[in-house]
Amino acid sequence: MYVGIEAGGTKFVCAVGTGPGDLRDVANFPTNTPEETLGRTRAFVAEHAAGLRGIGVASFGPVDLRPGSATYGYITSTPKPGWRDTDVLTPLREVADVPIGFDTDVNGAALGEARWGAAVDVGSCVYVTVGTGIGGGGLLGGQLIHGLLHPEMGHVPVARNPDDTFVGSCPFHGDCLEGLAAGPAIAERWGTPAQDLVGDELRRAVDIEADYLSQMAATITYILSPARLIFGGGVMHVDGLLDTMRSRLVDRLNAYLDVPEITEDVDSYVVRPVLGDHAGVLGAIALADRAATAPDPPSRPGFAQN
Amino acid sequence: MYVGIEAGGTKFVCAVGTGPGDLRDVANFPTNTPEETLGRTRAFVAEHAAGLRGIGVASFGPVDLRPGSATYGYITSTPKPGWRDTDVLTPLREVADVPIGFDTDVNGAALGEARWGAAVDVGSCVYVTVGTGIGGGGLLGGQLIHGLLHPEMGHVPVARNPDDTFVGSCPFHGDCLEGLAAGPAIAERWGTPAQDLVGDELRRAVDIEADYLSQMAATITYILSPARLIFGGGVMHVDGLLDTMRSRLVDRLNAYLDVPEITEDVDSYVVRPVLGDHAGVLGAIALADRAATAPDPPSRPGFAQN
Repeated sequence: MYVGIEAGGTKFVCAVGTGPGDLRDVANFPTNTPEETLGRTRAFVAEHAAGLRGIGVASFGPVDLRPGSATYGYITSTPKPGWRDTDVLTPLREVADVPIGFDTDVNGAALGEARWGAAVDVGSCVYVTVGTGIGGGGLLGGQLIHGLLHPEMGHVPVARNPDDTFVGSCPFHGDCLEGLAAGPAIAERWGTPAQDLVGDELRRAVDIEADYLSQMAATITYILSPARLIFGGGVMHVDGLLDTMRSRLVDRLNAYLDVPEITEDVDSYVVRPVLGDHAGVLGAIALADRAATAPDPPSRPGFAQN
Repeated sequence: MYVGIEAGGTKFVCAVGTGPGDLRDVANFPTNTPEETLGRTRAFVAEHAAGLRGIGVASFGPVDLRPGSATYGYITSTPKPGWRDTDVLTPLREVADVPIGFDTDVNGAALGEARWGAAVDVGSCVYVTVGTGIGGGGLLGGQLIHGLLHPEMGHVPVARNPDDTFVGSCPFHGDCLEGLAAGPAIAERWGTPAQDLVGDELRRAVDIEADYLSQMAATITYILSPARLIFGGGVMHVDGLLDTMRSRLVDRLNAYLDVPEITEDVDSYVVRPVLGDHAGVLGAIALADRAATAPDPPSRPGFAQN
């Protein structure tokens, strides 16, 4: 039995179980102060400590994942008030002496989808979420991706769409991918949230959004060459976006990559997540299982293990 | 004792040895027809077959690295005349029954630099070469990067520099990174090869080139988060380019990534390769050693192993 904790910037979701068919005692609470929210999380773990084999935490970030670091298991430089430099794991260790798997929310989601969802038949995948921000995580050669830090895929530079005059909304980079293509950028560009766009405006919005997201998909393909790309998050529900993005990706790769899995079957290469509402907490349970059953090999200084 | 084979698009380099301090019988020959060039390579291997423990091949590509594929070990869709769909490994197997490590030239270079060069103290790195083309490979969590295919990092989309009106020279994508920043793009943009630029033109060329390469460095950082970036290739010898690129990268990340290893010590994060003229063949020897001493675990379908 595992406890999975989806530590989100808006809410925490805790659950007990071993996978999608066995998920019990799901608890949700808002992300308030660390004291209150981690206190409730600790109480949840304490309540289920009997027979517990492992804990998994899939957290908003940035987080410190470097084995041996003095701040391993911390949420670090987050802009979220009160949460900067917060030790997430120690409160849990105080009530349960079991292995703890800790990673980013998106790496957790990638692991969950690889274990039970959209990437069970392949061994490498990247999970991207497009919502109020853009994030990505992934599994490559059986390992979650991190090194000095962890992926922050939303901030990659992109080429500007020629029809787009929006200046970009990322406070750090202006017109990086997140600044041009996350939900708030769409809402600012059109004066309307993505889900309310209709008619010609919807068509033009999909066109621009698909351009930017297909650039990201191409970039990930060129750099990582994963077997599957999973695109989730609220923005991906916009009518026609996923299909337009898929065909734009094939155009963009322009047969440079002679990989029939992409060029002839893009619908199986770029897919939606399948774990649904419980994807986050299932990712956390997958992290728990990984920590309990397949602990990481010893790592060298600076080594990207997980 | 290993044989390393650097299979380049212009020349092949073969050598016997175990590392940088032990490199013998280095042989170079031009990349002509597969029959002639692979024939000479096979003869080199046959000559050194006694006591051989492994062979490593670091090849130009694209190559098929998928374990279990019918065309594993082939150079596949290369534009190089005569080399499309060429079986590189069978001729070698005919003369030596030893483990063979096979990967891209840039993954080989990354492995060599990690073993003996610019990344010995860290566990993850990306190696980028900027010359007649732009390519990249890398090692993450002890594994060379590949999945469906292998990285083709040179073709990532980039945001156009506002002072750059050059249309781009990539036959597939026009103004992708390689189309804007490889040696031929520089030569076409300025009417002068990179190494002959001087004065104000040199300053402006470095400015544009550093912009594009810092975008690539940022993209790799955001997606992979490796512990070190190694930039090699002829273009990187242009006066002032590496330093300008480093400071542009720090500006670009704009303190979004709170990673002192990058923001406070970029000179140790973005570095030159150190293996010099024999980097390619040493990478191949590292691949041989890896194949002989640390064979890959069994792989699942589509799984990114190496």
